[in-house]
Amino acid sequence: MKVLWLFAHPDQRSLSGALKTEGLRALDAQGHRHRVSDLYAMKWNPVVDAADYAHDPADRLLIGEASERAYTDGHLAPDIRAEQHKLAWADTLIIQFPLWWYGMPAILKGWFDRVFVKGFAFGITDPATGRPQRYGDGKLAGKRAMVITTAGARAATLGPRGVNGDLNDLLFPLQHGTLWYTGISVVPPLLVPGADRMTPTAYATAATRLRERLRTLPTTEPLPFRHQNSSDYDDELLLHPDLAQLPPPRTGPAVHYTAPPPPVHG
Amino acid sequence: MKVLWLFAHPDQRSLSGALKTEGLRALDAQGHRHRVSDLYAMKWNPVVDAADYAHDPADRLLIGEASERAYTDGHLAPDIRAEQHKLAWADTLIIQFPLWWYGMPAILKGWFDRVFVKGFAFGITDPATGRPQRYGDGKLAGKRAMVITTAGARAATLGPRGVNGDLNDLLFPLQHGTLWYTGISVVPPLLVPGADRMTPTAYATAATRLRERLRTLPTTEPLPFRHQNSSDYDDELLLHPDLAQLPPPRTGPAVHYTAPPPPVHG
Repeated sequence: MKVLWLFAHPDQRSLSGALKTEGLRALDAQGHRHRVSDLYAMKWNPVVDAADYAHDPADRLLIGEASERAYTDGHLAPDIRAEQHKLAWADTLIIQFPLWWYGMPAILKGWFDRVFVKGFAFGITDPATGRPQRYGDGKLAGKRAMVITTAGARAATLGPRGVNGDLNDLLFPLQHGTLWYTGISVVPPLLVPGADRMTPTAYATAATRLRERLRTLPTTEPLPFRHQNSSDYDDELLLHPDLAQLPPPRTGPAVHYTAPPPPVHG
Repeated sequence: MKVLWLFAHPDQRSLSGALKTEGLRALDAQGHRHRVSDLYAMKWNPVVDAADYAHDPADRLLIGEASERAYTDGHLAPDIRAEQHKLAWADTLIIQFPLWWYGMPAILKGWFDRVFVKGFAFGITDPATGRPQRYGDGKLAGKRAMVITTAGARAATLGPRGVNGDLNDLLFPLQHGTLWYTGISVVPPLLVPGADRMTPTAYATAATRLRERLRTLPTTEPLPFRHQNSSDYDDELLLHPDLAQLPPPRTGPAVHYTAPPPPVHG
């Protein structure tokens, strides 16, 4: 694998930092190559702004248009271009973060806001069919991604009946709405629960699971998200009603999978 | 109402900016008071860091502990304290943003990451019962919130069968995992779809709907999220299996509602 490892924690001495070191060491030992975007260490700017697109602030900022033009003309901010080049190099994206308010830390959300510009990650049309390429199709198709997240909660509270909601549902905007949207296949997330009361035994278990998930990453079955450009969705991009009712009965994000995803373990 | 209006768009001349102006004017006309946190205009820093907590960088940063201590001792960064004071003043929170990658822009996610510290928004224990206060209970209980979001997508594609997922499911980490977590009641979101191809007629409709939603906000039925400290969840904070099966059959975020939320119109 050629891995781009996105990392978003302010302290290298954290559990997150230890797991990152563990993971990179495992990739080395397994003969893979990696590059790291350690967003705090890089002092990554997460805020989309006109300056990203060499846009004249006197003119109204239409973000889609401005970003697409800057991307096409090569005028995107250099830090954005550097990340796009890293992602182009990689075949695998690791996205590691502590779960803050059931989502990504702002510095990481802003990596996607700034790097995934129009023309690169969305707004892409298949020249042959004229159809928009997204949800399983796009310039980033062929790559895989895996989320690694640490959470204070116990694993069961991030399961189907857990008070916090199921982890795959919480990650749906990232795993489906961002990664799969751009064509990237997403393998099930790795959850490290109980992060604020980690014991040496629990850490050893987490590290073992991490090494194992990295070892099997190339052959792990991705989350079975539906393809937009399939007969599952009609011309209005609505799921066919009979598919939404398939047994077992499902509502919510689950209807956009062809089969239930594997349960998240902790 | 005393309204705190959070706003996260880089250009005041945008559709978002026009709707904000429209909304504030309506609040004035309706006799309500308001304060605005215009995050781009304030150059809000969205990145959690040791400096927020007057934390010695030589010591490992345990964010929960450090933030709680700084909150209790009054050493939180002044910009965080200012936002907490605004929120304490308000009885109603408006959260307005363009939907970027099916979530909040980073600058807004980082408002919650930084302002909602331990002791203020989480990690609160009921002195009488010793139980954690969250999901319908907490220091912010009694307040209401409403999301206003603009999206390029058509409304139906953000509905129950829409390819992008249902808006309430996409907003579950914010509406349930952040706002309801801290005790804030959440009324259904206002979606303004087709944002990148708005016509004068569509804008007039959106502005009318916005004024109407603000007018009825104090009496609108909140989203019927379950209370953690009810008999709906067991001692492990798992939803009782029979409730998860209630007709109509539901999976995903919907199981954490006592009844289906109203459909999102566009």
